[in-house]
Amino acid sequence: MIIQKTENSRLSTFDPNNFSFGNTFSDHMIICEYEDGKWGDVKLVPYGPLLFTPAMMGVNYGQACFEGMKAYKDNDGQVFLFRPEKNFERINKSAKRLAMPEVTEEMFLDGLKALVDTDRNWIPQGEGMSLYIRPLIFATEEALKARVANKYMFAIVATPAKSYYADPVSVKISDHYSRAASGGVGSAKAAGNYAASFYPTQLAMEEGYDQIIWTDDATHEYFEESGTMNVFVRINDTIYTPPTSEKILDGVTRDSFIQLANKRGLDIRVEPIAVQAVLDAHKNGTLKEVWGVGTAVVTTVFKALGHKGEKLQLPSLPDDESYAALLKSDLVNLQNNISEDPFGWRVLVKKDVLETA
Amino acid sequence: MIIQKTENSRLSTFDPNNFSFGNTFSDHMIICEYEDGKWGDVKLVPYGPLLFTPAMMGVNYGQACFEGMKAYKDNDGQVFLFRPEKNFERINKSAKRLAMPEVTEEMFLDGLKALVDTDRNWIPQGEGMSLYIRPLIFATEEALKARVANKYMFAIVATPAKSYYADPVSVKISDHYSRAASGGVGSAKAAGNYAASFYPTQLAMEEGYDQIIWTDDATHEYFEESGTMNVFVRINDTIYTPPTSEKILDGVTRDSFIQLANKRGLDIRVEPIAVQAVLDAHKNGTLKEVWGVGTAVVTTVFKALGHKGEKLQLPSLPDDESYAALLKSDLVNLQNNISEDPFGWRVLVKKDVLETA
Ligand SMILES: Cc1ncc(COP(=O)(O)O)c(C=O)c1O
Ligand SMILES: Cc1ncc(COP(=O)(O)O)c(C=O)c1O
Repeated sequence: MIIQKTENSRLSTFDPNNFSFGNTFSDHMIICEYEDGKWGDVKLVPYGPLLFTPAMMGVNYGQACFEGMKAYKDNDGQVFLFRPEKNFERINKSAKRLAMPEVTEEMFLDGLKALVDTDRNWIPQGEGMSLYIRPLIFATEEALKARVANKYMFAIVATPAKSYYADPVSVKISDHYSRAASGGVGSAKAAGNYAASFYPTQLAMEEGYDQIIWTDDATHEYFEESGTMNVFVRINDTIYTPPTSEKILDGVTRDSFIQLANKRGLDIRVEPIAVQAVLDAHKNGTLKEVWGVGTAVVTTVFKALGHKGEKLQLPSLPDDESYAALLKSDLVNLQNNISEDPFGWRVLVKKDVLETA
Repeated sequence: MIIQKTENSRLSTFDPNNFSFGNTFSDHMIICEYEDGKWGDVKLVPYGPLLFTPAMMGVNYGQACFEGMKAYKDNDGQVFLFRPEKNFERINKSAKRLAMPEVTEEMFLDGLKALVDTDRNWIPQGEGMSLYIRPLIFATEEALKARVANKYMFAIVATPAKSYYADPVSVKISDHYSRAASGGVGSAKAAGNYAASFYPTQLAMEEGYDQIIWTDDATHEYFEESGTMNVFVRINDTIYTPPTSEKILDGVTRDSFIQLANKRGLDIRVEPIAVQAVLDAHKNGTLKEVWGVGTAVVTTVFKALGHKGEKLQLPSLPDDESYAALLKSDLVNLQNNISEDPFGWRVLVKKDVLETA
């Protein structure tokens, strides 16, 4: 790895009690360029702009995919990643679907650790705090032909993240717009999937909702995901979540929730969720909770579901009766080194990895 | 418009008889930035790199759309655009679907004319030659949140383009992968649509095909488009092309072909094309021609259709019996100011538009 640390740290300008998520960047970034069929050296460099023309293929043809993950600081100042190998596997699955070169495990994990270690002082401490990390691969070749590019960049950038707290939200069950096609790229964390979701989400917001529950594009009869979260439904004391497919992103939080629920002995089933079954459960009073899960806020509880012009209010369970709250706290405690880690999910980021390499 | 012409023209390095399409860029580009809810000044500047970080939202979330159009030089050296208002309308349709700011007609058309006039010496002369022009809009804000961006760039870049000649190709009728979802972004020229098509196209190539005919994602029973072209099928003497929809790009060449066919009194029908109807026509010998149309090569004739493991050979018609060849020549003659323009499709690019403005 080539190391070029900044001589102008911006850390003194960073107030961990007062910052905005997503546009405060830590001092460094990882970059690595792909050319002539191979990846070059991984470099740790000061975060900042690079030179790209408007003919960059990543921008023109959307050949770009990314990951989202976090580093957590425990009470002793130790820093942990959470299941980084899952993000490594997923970025390569995305890359493959978009005909992009896969990254090596070494590039991905060593890059992550080097960046997180070097910028460890950017990780805010305390409940719900973390460093959000964004690995991405994008086509950098300058060319105006709709074809697979020959040049790419792998990069990792990071931004401090605040509390997990998320107000319950109202979500609209989509009956026209959709996120993914059968035989499409829904299971990839493909850049273009996100832009495609913005306009339908704006329309849902104009109708008084915060988010959308995406349904299958052919019939709109089955739940897929919600916004950038996987979705869980509790009917009586059984939890359901749809199986992943080529249309649904295989979320790390989803998988962790399933394992944590099993560990607790809860009745959790990976099964298709029919919109009608949810509506029926609402009507007969057995619909207890509906929530989304993802790296960003771990869990967002839904307080209302919109369906074809009707807004169905959902029960508001106290935390000690809520499976969503229970599993969230199990996960957060594990991520933050407050509880045991029977799964081996935490990965310690050693100090001075670069010096001792 | 703010004009900053290059002092280091690369024109002397450009050999119109020996250049590669898509990565030879003309001397200038148009750029215009959007911030605080409005577009700033349109600028003509030397083509070249700008500063962007890997946190650029256009790359992370695929909020980017583009256009593809051409400028043609006639035998007297006069330069014409072809139906530029169609590309203007379409880029705004794409922008809207991706929750991006629309551009004004003035920005788009004045930008185009200024660039094409300034770089008119980059337009190769002769049959099939042209300048390919790429207007695009992309999110430039640096932020790691999957939401609508606040900063964008509108840009226009250009690359000289060679002969229209395209060998007949073999295309695979898709029976698994798809380009667009119902309720998705297929009718937008969204960056992400192209990346999504690369891997399925690679797989088709490994099976011995050059391109894919996309079918509807739910049943794969109806033709949608082929590669980056709209598709036409001739059975006996009737021409069919599918109606545009939210899954099909509304191509300028497609629309021009329909109008030219009508003008010639050909029987052309805008109707869904069932895969089975095409297979049946092939079997009973009434399938005469299948071809794709788009700005890049105007027409690509298909010589074979792949369907579920079978490769059906198509007839090879001489030019004087081919509707594809007839309509292509009608269009090319009109674009190149060889024939009359009863439709008012040609738009002359005046000389020294900037000086006389
Ligand atoms: C579309 C989509 N679904 C689900 C998720 C949840 O995945 P994870 O739990 O790995 O963050 C994400 C990522 O944030 C996503 O973008
Ligand atoms: C997906 C797709 N379909 C069809 C076309 C043809 O459109 P046009 O004739 O406007 O070039 C294009 C553009 O090249 C395209 O990208």
